[in-house]
Amino acid sequence: MSSTLGDTIKLSLFGESHGEAIGIVIDGLAAGIPLDLDFINHQMDKRKAKGKTSTARKEADEIHIVSGYFNGYTTGTPLTILIQNTNTQSKDYSKTKDILRPSHADYTAYEKYHGYQDYRGGGHFSGRLTAPIVAAGAICMQILKNKGIQIGTHICNLHGITDTLFSDDVPSIEAELNSLDSKAFPVLNEDTASQMQAEILKHKEDLNSVGGILESVVIGVQAGIGEPFADSIESKLSSLIFSIPAVKGIEFGLGFDFATTTGKEANDAFIMKDGKIQTRTNNNGGINGGISNGMPIRLKTCIKPTPSIYATQDSVNYQTKEATTLQIEGRHDPAIIHRAAVVVDSMIAIGLVDLYTKRYGYMWQYEERV
Amino acid sequence: MSSTLGDTIKLSLFGESHGEAIGIVIDGLAAGIPLDLDFINHQMDKRKAKGKTSTARKEADEIHIVSGYFNGYTTGTPLTILIQNTNTQSKDYSKTKDILRPSHADYTAYEKYHGYQDYRGGGHFSGRLTAPIVAAGAICMQILKNKGIQIGTHICNLHGITDTLFSDDVPSIEAELNSLDSKAFPVLNEDTASQMQAEILKHKEDLNSVGGILESVVIGVQAGIGEPFADSIESKLSSLIFSIPAVKGIEFGLGFDFATTTGKEANDAFIMKDGKIQTRTNNNGGINGGISNGMPIRLKTCIKPTPSIYATQDSVNYQTKEATTLQIEGRHDPAIIHRAAVVVDSMIAIGLVDLYTKRYGYMWQYEERV
Amino acid sequence: MSSTLGDTIKLSLFGESHGEAIGIVIDGLAAGIPLDLDFINHQMDKRKAKGKTSTARKEADEIHIVSGYFNGYTTGTPLTILIQNTNTQSKDYSKTKDILRPSHADYTAYEKYHGYQDYRGGGHFSGRLTAPIVAAGAICMQILKNKGIQIGTHICNLHGITDTLFSDDVPSIEAELNSLDSKAFPVLNEDTASQMQAEILKHKEDLNSVGGILESVVIGVQAGIGEPFADSIESKLSSLIFSIPAVKGIEFGLGFDFATTTGKEANDAFIMKDGKIQTRTNNNGGINGGISNGMPIRLKTCIKPTPSIYATQDSVNYQTKEATTLQIEGRHDPAIIHRAAVVVDSMIAIGLVDLYTKRYGYMWQYEERV
Amino acid sequence: MSSTLGDTIKLSLFGESHGEAIGIVIDGLAAGIPLDLDFINHQMDKRKAKGKTSTARKEADEIHIVSGYFNGYTTGTPLTILIQNTNTQSKDYSKTKDILRPSHADYTAYEKYHGYQDYRGGGHFSGRLTAPIVAAGAICMQILKNKGIQIGTHICNLHGITDTLFSDDVPSIEAELNSLDSKAFPVLNEDTASQMQAEILKHKEDLNSVGGILESVVIGVQAGIGEPFADSIESKLSSLIFSIPAVKGIEFGLGFDFATTTGKEANDAFIMKDGKIQTRTNNNGGINGGISNGMPIRLKTCIKPTPSIYATQDSVNYQTKEATTLQIEGRHDPAIIHRAAVVVDSMIAIGLVDLYTKRYGYMWQYEERV
Repeated sequence: MSSTLGDTIKLSLFGESHGEAIGIVIDGLAAGIPLDLDFINHQMDKRKAKGKTSTARKEADEIHIVSGYFNGYTTGTPLTILIQNTNTQSKDYSKTKDILRPSHADYTAYEKYHGYQDYRGGGHFSGRLTAPIVAAGAICMQILKNKGIQIGTHICNLHGITDTLFSDDVPSIEAELNSLDSKAFPVLNEDTASQMQAEILKHKEDLNSVGGILESVVIGVQAGIGEPFADSIESKLSSLIFSIPAVKGIEFGLGFDFATTTGKEANDAFIMKDGKIQTRTNNNGGINGGISNGMPIRLKTCIKPTPSIYATQDSVNYQTKEATTLQIEGRHDPAIIHRAAVVVDSMIAIGLVDLYTKRYGYMWQYEERV
Repeated sequence: MSSTLGDTIKLSLFGESHGEAIGIVIDGLAAGIPLDLDFINHQMDKRKAKGKTSTARKEADEIHIVSGYFNGYTTGTPLTILIQNTNTQSKDYSKTKDILRPSHADYTAYEKYHGYQDYRGGGHFSGRLTAPIVAAGAICMQILKNKGIQIGTHICNLHGITDTLFSDDVPSIEAELNSLDSKAFPVLNEDTASQMQAEILKHKEDLNSVGGILESVVIGVQAGIGEPFADSIESKLSSLIFSIPAVKGIEFGLGFDFATTTGKEANDAFIMKDGKIQTRTNNNGGINGGISNGMPIRLKTCIKPTPSIYATQDSVNYQTKEATTLQIEGRHDPAIIHRAAVVVDSMIAIGLVDLYTKRYGYMWQYEERV
Repeated sequence: MSSTLGDTIKLSLFGESHGEAIGIVIDGLAAGIPLDLDFINHQMDKRKAKGKTSTARKEADEIHIVSGYFNGYTTGTPLTILIQNTNTQSKDYSKTKDILRPSHADYTAYEKYHGYQDYRGGGHFSGRLTAPIVAAGAICMQILKNKGIQIGTHICNLHGITDTLFSDDVPSIEAELNSLDSKAFPVLNEDTASQMQAEILKHKEDLNSVGGILESVVIGVQAGIGEPFADSIESKLSSLIFSIPAVKGIEFGLGFDFATTTGKEANDAFIMKDGKIQTRTNNNGGINGGISNGMPIRLKTCIKPTPSIYATQDSVNYQTKEATTLQIEGRHDPAIIHRAAVVVDSMIAIGLVDLYTKRYGYMWQYEERV
Repeated sequence: MSSTLGDTIKLSLFGESHGEAIGIVIDGLAAGIPLDLDFINHQMDKRKAKGKTSTARKEADEIHIVSGYFNGYTTGTPLTILIQNTNTQSKDYSKTKDILRPSHADYTAYEKYHGYQDYRGGGHFSGRLTAPIVAAGAICMQILKNKGIQIGTHICNLHGITDTLFSDDVPSIEAELNSLDSKAFPVLNEDTASQMQAEILKHKEDLNSVGGILESVVIGVQAGIGEPFADSIESKLSSLIFSIPAVKGIEFGLGFDFATTTGKEANDAFIMKDGKIQTRTNNNGGINGGISNGMPIRLKTCIKPTPSIYATQDSVNYQTKEATTLQIEGRHDPAIIHRAAVVVDSMIAIGLVDLYTKRYGYMWQYEERV
């Protein structure tokens, strides 16, 4: 369905940018998972607008659990999370609603919902809807962490400024993930962080915006997870990650660079290492035939520049069908890529819990934690 | 499920490379669609191994409709297509089954199916399974064509050799699609075809293989198709296309090039043209907020080099856990990208029929054809 | 999933009896449906505990729409309804939680959720969860009414006291449905109402409870709705109605009485009437081969006596595994059948909107209303 | 979807009565299940038309496994079963297709498929489609048997002639199931068998048909299986069983008899027995709150009289809209209830494997069998 993510766990996402609240219902969690609320809030915090590189709309994003949670544990029945919208500005959107913002969903929403969409601040298409995804993703990450699975994402390219990539070996990756987890700006190399932030601010002053590329890695996934075809890991994760607003590209392992390799170069030879079957290289990003091979899962996600910019743009009035210009008011982000990193982590976590649950049932989420 | 594609139409894919037959059941087609068998066979033909650039295993790939088809029309009940495997070689796979072929699904299948997989020729993971997808996709393309929607895919990059990209305007694209439809090798520029074929043969002689990038375009999709989040066009198409073996990257519109643009450059300004709201540029590939905006839908798919190569490779014996070398015998493709183009077309068609059917019901597939 | 109802429209039900709130997310509604809040409240009112024949727990059951609703119309994105639990008594459930209430879900919840269930007042298994179903059902009934489809349910048997059955002809049924809609106690024959209420009170005084049979009818469904097998009308409606707590039997048309008929008696001969193909009798309850035939859809639902009774009962302590006796305290219903009628109506409405939407898409919910 | 059954295992049913073949694809089976083909054939045999109490159309119903099966074990990829239609008579159905057979799906199919249905012998609506269900059900029963779960169904009422009901205690039920498994006519009491068969033949001579009631029991299901609401055991099983042609009623435990009991009589007191929590009575048929309580699961299914009778019936010509009479030719069953018993068993097995797989994953089907 339009806003129902997942299969063996189902996440029903709801809300609008300027409605009363946004939220999510998670159906398919096992009973008895002790939620780490500090961790959830820690993840929520990563997504929050902070400082000058983000929108001036600062939301508390306090999660409020309405159901499925009792005495500190999940009950096994649908867990509902509500997040109030507290910082909506009472401007009159109805005046500007017909001037279509370029590269936003204003026009497509008009055509799809024939005028009945909640047009205030992008409505259901708003990036705010990623807040409940992060809350749900944090629960999934917690489940995975208990199984020894860790996920992390950093900006590897922001308008041409590049960060160090994740290492190849698991211990180094683990260290990188730990370091990343405590950073306010998700990059591996600290110097890069300040360059990227300066780049964002430069474009902000120019009434402009920038995008970039996120690199993600997952360690600890056993070989044999995922399914051929419809539920290949690539299918599952891409479907979820492309649900995130502004994502326009995804690649696994070498990704588009496979186009300029040959089979000899690209094939990952099998070797014995530490008593286990591994591959010498990991060009396939830990996935063969849609199924995990035990190596780190690696993927990159491209985030387009925020379409909301302060510069004057050409547009059309939907009602009058006349050309016009548009100067977007309100508060918005000169870049969202640093806030999107945790959303990608969350979607990966949701996808992996979904695939593990298919194989081992929802009891898998619980039983080994005793 | 593992091999069940789609939502409002469900396609249940089955079979193994060296089993008796492969096939697909399509549940959710309207009654009364007059199948154009010539067109289906024409599409099947595009996928067939032909000449020296493909495997020596030549399969007739005759489609045999077992159910759901009566007096030349779909009946509205599940349509089943069977394709016999006729050209399987009776070699003894059990000897080599434990020597894991690099970058194939041999190892992951072993781990997932704990030794019970059909290991002959890749089993269910074989590229042969794309034959029923093409048959189903041809039916979907036929439905779409009746609605004025056309789809086409060409190789825009084969190991560095590039083809002209699709044009921007619909009439030119239409001409390109028509021209492409009759070509044995899916490129727009005829000179490029011979260069690419020579490149494939060069690597074949070198016991090697190559990959590349496919560019796809869809014209005629009205604005308002697709859903936010889970059923965004990007989610739906990426999920289906990543089901195709060897696909490792997908991007829409500018895709990864968004990383080096700014909002000012990337935003697609709205304009009035031919009395309709359109965008001046189409950097978003016809999709905003996951929903079609009426502009051509554009995407690129990266196909990795065929993992089957004749060169000797390092590997491991799954049972003995000992390092070994492997020289893949049998018949295989030095490149599959030219055969994959029609598979991508098919997946796009399946995805779009799925999304249209969600909005207008399965009756949409039928009613306007009267 | 456990608590996600429907297919082309998805309803994600959540909450517990003594949690903060219960609610539902409806994903798959068209944009532009003008909600009739008075009608929704009217339906909610039918389900409310009133007078002595129901529990002393009186809940306001005010529906609060959190998302998917804007300026009086549905937006086409998920519509979320919250209902606060206001009248929960602060008794200490933890003392009695291990004494299993006979014929309740206490024991099965213990086994399924291994001790983590919210045991207060039945938790997620509580009849309170039918309140959001009624709210969602009211929206679906409103959609159907716009298409000329009407649904109604009355008690045809309460502990042996029987009501008149619905008539056979549509105009009479329509009159009966209109009359029924305004009644506080859902029976066709007013005299029967007082007898049934007296019967309930008699058993209440005896610290006992009673059940009965509901008869439902739907008029206005065109021939051709429903699907063979998995989505037969009987499959769809039974699946939804058996989700209602206390339902233990469902039959369509003659139902179990078919066992004592013959084909000659049971077959519904086709006739021409009012220029339309109809059947002379309607033993099949408007459904042939799982699909509507244009005649009124008729079904009966058996509701067991409320398992909560004040009489002392034998039980077992789950933790000590010792036999014990139990006297249920708290507030409960001596019968719930009169409150269940509107829940059955709601489930029928949900099921029919689901089946219509499969055939005509979600746009069907909207387009003809203009 | 119309003909796709199940959730965590998906069964895609296809074919028509007079097409070339019917069949089913099962997606979601674990790898490594050693199929007992003798058992599958034994189950298929129970459904076959035999002797004078069934149709003269005798089909071999040989199952042919096309995919998902290798060296005697399931592979974990979709398992496809084909059953040829061998005994179709080449009569000209096109002459009679417009004379609607009462209580068949002729009219509803016409309306739903607007004339494109395969009308020969009921097409996809034919009882023949239950053959692949029995094959799939046999595989599920085999999985369940390995876990100590047994299922059985007998005719408890055939046009008023009643059989002994299943016992209450598990050892007796087990003996009854074993005895039943070897019987050609599924009743517990041998005398009843001959009476019922005589009754069928009597009505056959009268150009008539009869129906009846099936009683089913399942032993060995642990407490805690099933889900609240949408996937309650009652919802899951009723949805599947109502997919079987001719089923018009289902009840669990006391079923409709709950209407004349009180809570005191109906409640199943908990007791300790054999060191386990059990209930003294089993009026709820082993299910509380939609979830198994460890007691035998008990249900009854009403099968209507076969609508195909040789007597002349009133009907209408669909095309001319004129009243006419109809004398059904061809071969058909004077009763199908004895053949339907194994179909109900199969659906129960499919439903239980589905629910167990949701809880424990598809690996549950395999792992404990080692």
